[in-house]
Amino acid sequence: MISEKMKMLVKNNSVIREMFEEGKKLAKTYGEENVYDFSLGNPSVPAPKEINETIKKIVDSEDSCKVHGYMSNSGFEDVRGKIAGSLNKRFNTDFTSNNIIMTVGAASGLNIVLKSILNQDEEVIVFTPYFMEYKNYINNYDGKVVEVKCKEPNFEPNLDEFERKITPKTRAVIINTPNNPTGAIYSEEVLKSLSDIMVKKEKEFNNTIFLISDEPYRELVYDDTVVPYVTKFYNNTFVVYSYSKSLSLPGERIGYVVVPDEMEDSENVFAAVTIANRVIGCVNAPALMQKVIGECVDLKVDVSEYKKNRDLLYNGLKELNFECVYPQGAFYLFVKSPISDDKEFCNIAKKYNILVVPGSAFSYPRYVRISYCVSNDMIKRSLKAFENLAEEVFGKKYNKT
Amino acid sequence: MISEKMKMLVKNNSVIREMFEEGKKLAKTYGEENVYDFSLGNPSVPAPKEINETIKKIVDSEDSCKVHGYMSNSGFEDVRGKIAGSLNKRFNTDFTSNNIIMTVGAASGLNIVLKSILNQDEEVIVFTPYFMEYKNYINNYDGKVVEVKCKEPNFEPNLDEFERKITPKTRAVIINTPNNPTGAIYSEEVLKSLSDIMVKKEKEFNNTIFLISDEPYRELVYDDTVVPYVTKFYNNTFVVYSYSKSLSLPGERIGYVVVPDEMEDSENVFAAVTIANRVIGCVNAPALMQKVIGECVDLKVDVSEYKKNRDLLYNGLKELNFECVYPQGAFYLFVKSPISDDKEFCNIAKKYNILVVPGSAFSYPRYVRISYCVSNDMIKRSLKAFENLAEEVFGKKYNKT
Repeated sequence: MISEKMKMLVKNNSVIREMFEEGKKLAKTYGEENVYDFSLGNPSVPAPKEINETIKKIVDSEDSCKVHGYMSNSGFEDVRGKIAGSLNKRFNTDFTSNNIIMTVGAASGLNIVLKSILNQDEEVIVFTPYFMEYKNYINNYDGKVVEVKCKEPNFEPNLDEFERKITPKTRAVIINTPNNPTGAIYSEEVLKSLSDIMVKKEKEFNNTIFLISDEPYRELVYDDTVVPYVTKFYNNTFVVYSYSKSLSLPGERIGYVVVPDEMEDSENVFAAVTIANRVIGCVNAPALMQKVIGECVDLKVDVSEYKKNRDLLYNGLKELNFECVYPQGAFYLFVKSPISDDKEFCNIAKKYNILVVPGSAFSYPRYVRISYCVSNDMIKRSLKAFENLAEEVFGKKYNKT
Repeated sequence: MISEKMKMLVKNNSVIREMFEEGKKLAKTYGEENVYDFSLGNPSVPAPKEINETIKKIVDSEDSCKVHGYMSNSGFEDVRGKIAGSLNKRFNTDFTSNNIIMTVGAASGLNIVLKSILNQDEEVIVFTPYFMEYKNYINNYDGKVVEVKCKEPNFEPNLDEFERKITPKTRAVIINTPNNPTGAIYSEEVLKSLSDIMVKKEKEFNNTIFLISDEPYRELVYDDTVVPYVTKFYNNTFVVYSYSKSLSLPGERIGYVVVPDEMEDSENVFAAVTIANRVIGCVNAPALMQKVIGECVDLKVDVSEYKKNRDLLYNGLKELNFECVYPQGAFYLFVKSPISDDKEFCNIAKKYNILVVPGSAFSYPRYVRISYCVSNDMIKRSLKAFENLAEEVFGKKYNKT
């Protein structure tokens, strides 16, 4: 009854989404307070209060047909101008409204970029571990995923392997910094080297290779680590942004794509991305939320809560002898599975009502991802459960409580 | 620089959207009050005031992380339940939340349905004239468009041609009633005959053929014409709905898809459509707007304004000797082009600052579409311009003013 392509997707449904549904079931059985659901990247810090105030102000003061109506498929021009202005101020760029396309979140942003550039069987390079939806997005346009491993312990891209894997079929490279699931942030040095390789390969193959920078976690940074702005290093760069995490609005589906003037044939690419936005059925990013962003363009959520969570969980798990990647940004902890089968480890964790996602769901087995965008209180309560889990998998007694 | 598929789309960009952009330019040159832009289906009647009141109530009273957060990819369960309940009450159906998937408007709804069912080179039948975005949506999933002509003067589907054009490759049939661009509404009798043919052909080819009922105009009906509910006639029916017109929220991108239990393998299809919603990048329908719909499920806009517009424009153009289809629903007037080249007629109209869309943009040349979702005042002002246009194309004097 369903298409062949969808059969595969239904069969291999998102592990993360299945965990999320399972967490809701466990909570019904054991009580919400006894389940430690670390599966989903659903922000636990509320949107800044200005968001709801701005929503009310706009619906009270503006013409309903304009607030809720159609606009250009690329979004309200004034909102795009305000975003461009804010980026210019922060990153010393030179964007205008003509470089910004408002999108239904970063997921749609990635889709319309890939639809705009990808021909059948062309290759897109991703760095493992990576958010596996990239694979589905690339498959939507009949592209091929080429995986390059990151180097432990810092989870920076392995640039030697990267260079070797660029072929005449390479059409795009996706980076995600701050990274889901590792929390790593690529330094200026890494980005420069990556760009140098791409420029060299573009010349060698007389081909355009796009860099797609997926940046939903840009504002979620701890300890003053700098997240360099990628368009400065490489001309053919798309920036795909979302307010899902930076303003805690994941359900509202609001973000944007940057097509810089420095990109080859940028006007035509801008037109293509705008038309793709219409043709995949989004038509435009949600109107009221666009206007809210226009008024709140320099706001961000209070990241100190996530930092507190990171420190509590990281230190707690280290004390229990778990091997963890120290996250510089985002809200995920990437933890080495104490047993070789990461899925089996997740199953054992489930016995203690701990829900975490196996690294194999990020094409990186032997690790698990723990989302710490949860209440600080839940992390505190979970530490006893993690202790019991550690006792089972490490076979030793902690007697911490 | 852009993909081969996108090159075609950029080249043949939406005529309607180009008109909309052109209208904005003309307004800058001649003043907004001297331009008669009938190009776009952008509602002119504001959303019911309860919409904005409900928005404010929700952001004031509910937990921000829940209002703006992720939920299941099919949408908030309670909202889906309320929509199901409202449909059951109105149409004597038997839906639950498990039959409803919240979507980013009807355009995304159509995309995720087509993605879920369509394999390469399978055929989808549409009835001309039709909303040409269907073609792009079908092409997104490598399907083939098969056109069947409607019969003049009522613009009901030609069922003989329809039956002949169903092949073993036919995967789906799209209907749109009330219709864009003709305003026609299919009667119970037409729907029964259409269904009978499909049932017969399903048996003949031992194949499943889906009926996709695209219903953004369901509530925009005049003169008490009945719009029958399609799932009653044919089991394998998807209903694709949008609040864009019924609540004047086109920019907010909110609608739903119905997958009835009567559909073959309905649970699996429901799962596929839900996953497609995630994978094309929508993830979920905008969260706050879902909650608003849940509270306003039985509301609709005041259609009396559109009726007033229809009557004024229809009568005005008839008096000028234009041949018009009398619209029973939606907010479009389909008018015969007085000259054989409909595009040329649109160009002549433009000289009088009248913007209308050629029928060839609906795969139905010799007609033009006039959207009357505009201010009544603009229609009044436009009648003099239409008179001048009529004088040029019919070569006679009216002396009406």
